Amino acid sequence: MKLRTLLTCCALAASGAALADSAVSPIYGVSLPDGYRHWELIAPAVEAAPLNELRTVLGNDKAIQAYQSGQVPFPDGTVLVKLAWKHVPSPEFDPASIPGAATTVQVMVKDAKRYAATGGWGFGRFINGKPADEAQHQTCFACHQAKVQNHDYVFTRFAP
Amino acid sequence: MKLRTLLTCCALAASGAALADSAVSPIYGVSLPDGYRHWELIAPAVEAAPLNELRTVLGNDKAIQAYQSGQVPFPDGTVLVKLAWKHVPSPEFDPASIPGAATTVQVMVKDAKRYAATGGWGFGRFINGKPADEAQHQTCFACHQAKVQNHDYVFTRFAP
Repeated sequence: MKLRTLLTCCALAASGAALADSAVSPIYGVSLPDGYRHWELIAPAVEAAPLNELRTVLGNDKAIQAYQSGQVPFPDGTVLVKLAWKHVPSPEFDPASIPGAATTVQVMVKDAKRYAATGGWGFGRFINGKPADEAQHQTCFACHQAKVQNHDYVFTRFAP
Repeated sequence: MKLRTLLTCCALAASGAALADSAVSPIYGVSLPDGYRHWELIAPAVEAAPLNELRTVLGNDKAIQAYQSGQVPFPDGTVLVKLAWKHVPSPEFDPASIPGAATTVQVMVKDAKRYAATGGWGFGRFINGKPADEAQHQTCFACHQAKVQNHDYVFTRFAP
């Protein structure tokens, strides 16, 4: 009976591991962090055509502390999450555009050793909770490197 | 000595009360809530000309719980805070606009009894931490009443 219990546990654990593996980004192995929707606001943004998106970057406690103390480069354990939605006209207030359908959730995880080849950052782009393909992930670091190397490869600043 | 201490305390308390009074909105007596910048995200928005603002609404725990459970009308104690900034082009990423100078912080506080005449909501509009004048506060409820009476006078929906 004990053996059977052990075997069942192992089977469940293996199954859980397989599920977890399928939910991580290619190249980087980054997953959607638990509870990120409850994290604190760093800043919103709006992106013009062709994407036409509203975006909001949230951060874990380590990220918020780093922003507040001006710590750049960000410390290991920093996680940034950018939520994005198509922006649509508010049906109730003409001058406003508001979030429509969610499009992507994008994650940056700081681990200077693990991601040494990409400025210390691992990237994950998720669509409907599933990681996008490898080709999309190959574009992340090149753009961050070209444009914001002087801010530890991070575009977003803390909104006052 | 005890009396002097007491008198000093009273003087300080009175002075504190006076300061607090000057930091509340006209008509409603609403103040900027402590720690609101740490509250959870409800949704971002963008507002067209002439304001040209990025906005983000945050909520206290009671607000977040109400949104998540679809509780309308919102319960007493709900507090919503809208942060607004001029939007400016990102100097680093052409298609994006990001927060520039902060403009207003606007607060809605639910207290069905205290604010019975205005749908149960008290309003506060703050500029550089100071409440705007009475004329501005006279416009709040009329607009919310005209446009979103069917959502307990609240424009913002929870961004998925």
